[in-house]
Amino acid sequence: MTATDSIPDTTGAELDAALQRANRAAEEMCAQPPAGRARQLRAAADALDAAAAELVDLARAESNLSEARLTGELARTTFQLRLFAETADSGEFLHVVLDRADPDFPLGPKPDLRRMLLPLGPVLVFAASNFPFAFSVAGGDTAAALAAGCPVLVKAHPGHPALSQRTAEIVGEALRSAGAPEGAFDVVFGFETGSNALQDPRIRAAAFTGSVPAGRALHDIAAARPDPIPFFGELGSLNPVFVTPGAVRARGADIASGYVNSYCGNAGQLCTKPGLLFLPAGHGLGEALVGHARDAAAHPMLNERLHEGFEQRRREATEVPGVQVLVDGDAAGPSPTLLAASVDTLLEHREALLAEAFGPLSIVVEYDSPQEANRVAEAFAGNLTATVHAEDDEAGLVGGLVRRLRERAGRVLFNGWPTGVAVSPAMQHGGPYPATTDARFTSVGTASIERFLRPVTYQNAPAGVLPEPLRDDNPWNIPQTVHQPG
Amino acid sequence: MTATDSIPDTTGAELDAALQRANRAAEEMCAQPPAGRARQLRAAADALDAAAAELVDLARAESNLSEARLTGELARTTFQLRLFAETADSGEFLHVVLDRADPDFPLGPKPDLRRMLLPLGPVLVFAASNFPFAFSVAGGDTAAALAAGCPVLVKAHPGHPALSQRTAEIVGEALRSAGAPEGAFDVVFGFETGSNALQDPRIRAAAFTGSVPAGRALHDIAAARPDPIPFFGELGSLNPVFVTPGAVRARGADIASGYVNSYCGNAGQLCTKPGLLFLPAGHGLGEALVGHARDAAAHPMLNERLHEGFEQRRREATEVPGVQVLVDGDAAGPSPTLLAASVDTLLEHREALLAEAFGPLSIVVEYDSPQEANRVAEAFAGNLTATVHAEDDEAGLVGGLVRRLRERAGRVLFNGWPTGVAVSPAMQHGGPYPATTDARFTSVGTASIERFLRPVTYQNAPAGVLPEPLRDDNPWNIPQTVHQPG
Repeated sequence: MTATDSIPDTTGAELDAALQRANRAAEEMCAQPPAGRARQLRAAADALDAAAAELVDLARAESNLSEARLTGELARTTFQLRLFAETADSGEFLHVVLDRADPDFPLGPKPDLRRMLLPLGPVLVFAASNFPFAFSVAGGDTAAALAAGCPVLVKAHPGHPALSQRTAEIVGEALRSAGAPEGAFDVVFGFETGSNALQDPRIRAAAFTGSVPAGRALHDIAAARPDPIPFFGELGSLNPVFVTPGAVRARGADIASGYVNSYCGNAGQLCTKPGLLFLPAGHGLGEALVGHARDAAAHPMLNERLHEGFEQRRREATEVPGVQVLVDGDAAGPSPTLLAASVDTLLEHREALLAEAFGPLSIVVEYDSPQEANRVAEAFAGNLTATVHAEDDEAGLVGGLVRRLRERAGRVLFNGWPTGVAVSPAMQHGGPYPATTDARFTSVGTASIERFLRPVTYQNAPAGVLPEPLRDDNPWNIPQTVHQPG
Repeated sequence: MTATDSIPDTTGAELDAALQRANRAAEEMCAQPPAGRARQLRAAADALDAAAAELVDLARAESNLSEARLTGELARTTFQLRLFAETADSGEFLHVVLDRADPDFPLGPKPDLRRMLLPLGPVLVFAASNFPFAFSVAGGDTAAALAAGCPVLVKAHPGHPALSQRTAEIVGEALRSAGAPEGAFDVVFGFETGSNALQDPRIRAAAFTGSVPAGRALHDIAAARPDPIPFFGELGSLNPVFVTPGAVRARGADIASGYVNSYCGNAGQLCTKPGLLFLPAGHGLGEALVGHARDAAAHPMLNERLHEGFEQRRREATEVPGVQVLVDGDAAGPSPTLLAASVDTLLEHREALLAEAFGPLSIVVEYDSPQEANRVAEAFAGNLTATVHAEDDEAGLVGGLVRRLRERAGRVLFNGWPTGVAVSPAMQHGGPYPATTDARFTSVGTASIERFLRPVTYQNAPAGVLPEPLRDDNPWNIPQTVHQPG
């Protein structure tokens, strides 16, 4: 038996057939107007909504997550599919630029140049364990790639195989019924299957959400191909939170409870979980923090493998000399663990303390001065988020800190908590390595479609061979930026 | 002595100091308003123009290129610096998106999100041999990175060390005089120096123009770093040209002379040199092609290493069984070589015939039918360009061919020649591997600035900590896309 107990691994022959179908689908998908893609994405959303009860039941059985959480996550997933339908529909993502011929160009006559973005081709999506809907079979990567016009092959996560299979059936049927070609969407199972697919020349890009070691291994496979392909891995993040003296005075109690909620929610299994809280010396929040962490309910983790990994990380961090255990979580639950460390201890034991612990554990650190906060901020590698709690009149105090944090994170947020990622055009869910393998892109929000496109320019093309978005009569009604000579 | 005879390799200590300066300059450059960057780029262009006579003399002595060619290339280089000044000035490249808070967002209250692009940090530019100005010390990669706000460290090409040194002095002085911080720009020498710099954590991205083996080796170094960085290599391209029967009838004589001019110009040392010409059977252009190729002047190559490499490639291609030598170039000159091969020979000997020969050599291939043209188009890996010569009433005939070519090239051009790349907003100079290592970006044209930026999002930030481009009062007057709720 494989990890996906109920569902056998995809065989080599099945994978080859799926890749062949995806490869054949690519040209037809590229030629479909954005409105067609939008219709297909909406059909998938509608079908998933209609099957919500069945899907949430399957997810509960395979994930230990609550009905409320899963129902909300499915709503987010179908919202996301519809948002990408809008994105596709608008055609803006094609970034059409028409640059008219200019016989008087300073460097000599300039030809007529017309540029647009094309889908990369079949995309391999590695589903995540912690969001069985939103970062899985029909999640953000799938929605973005389909909106871009790329066939999608999902490598299912072994944590929820039955849900993956059923989701794939529903989505596949909905896409087909709305006009998607055969091969536009498929799901495969098995560790080897994923690795083999990533090396196949028919796969033109890949997206992954998961751990640093797994993501790095896949990144290296993609980069070592005879033809390297774009690989978008969202790996690990510590998501540090810095609190100023003013913020402690104004709303210390709220900060203590908000922090514990944020790091303990979903058993700490969120990529934006705050792993470190930096408080000014003399903050006086110790008792409140301990109280909230003790009160927070134990919550079973997604699966046994994650639970074991968390226990190991918890032991490593707890055993660092100088680390104080404020709340010693029950390993079996697991219930939340809260640690404390000095700045010096943190910086001396980076490997154990400045590494993600995927589960309900976080570390409180006292700092003495803004200079010390700045110094510790410089110790961080890449993060998805960094948070600052400060009062409005402290902008001068935190200016240097914010500059340091934005060098190391994709999103800097204020007076809130990093968990909960809005799906919006201005969202950035990505950051310098190891938060992601390519900080130039986001994996949440409509800008994530940019991962799956590449530009092509037509020069002096006769009208008859131009694709619709580049034609003067603009039959798809795509926004066109036009540069006239002079 | 090293390959850069006149100039010693940069020492490890010198490199470290240069990287330190670049690293320190990064924050100040990021904070400078676009107008400041634009002023610096214009100052560099003015200073290079003022030193044109001296620089062209240095370039002639080191490159075997003609005064006219070099004068034109320097003009293109300073034009390019000024174009990037305009690009910086407009601020559009920051892609500012303001997404207002929405308490009634369907998935729960949405925070205020503000997204912009930030410079990646110090960029390492590997200069090319074949364009001592336009793809070298002050070339397109340097201009784009500076416009993006990144410090630039150029690894000089050993083919023109004195020119590189002098160009760097002039550019560095001009940038400083216009307000660029120390460390904004520097040049280093030596093969090991380049490789060491690429592995240094202070380098945040790299750009390269050169051969497939060298580019792939550097790509692999960048990908294998503890923190992988973006690497933009522009490597090799065959630039196939397909001619229809209608085009032969209408203007066969022009096509024959245009092709020979394009592949022999600059001794064939252009990345967009047409390496293959596909003609319909019975084209009758053989005599004209041979005549033009025999008449084309011999032209010394840029340096002895390239000359030797070309001779080897020429022998490999010439010795393939079935290849016919139409014009046997003089090896010493070298004067142009013209070969002919059947489609079958081409497809049987891909390694020898479907590989770039950097120098004055090209291959003429007859095809029997549109189907055969399509079949051979599918044999190509990634290219910078693909060209079609066809009459307007042949759009139906070439539709399938154009679709196949655009899957394999960044620019598809019609009824012209691929050499000569316009610097324009709609240009795409990049293509699937091995044409480039990242087909999502261009290395020519204003869109090439996108290579050196990454997004960051501020969430619910107090006005006092927002960078200028994200502020409501928009002090830099940057274009802002604003999304209102609802």
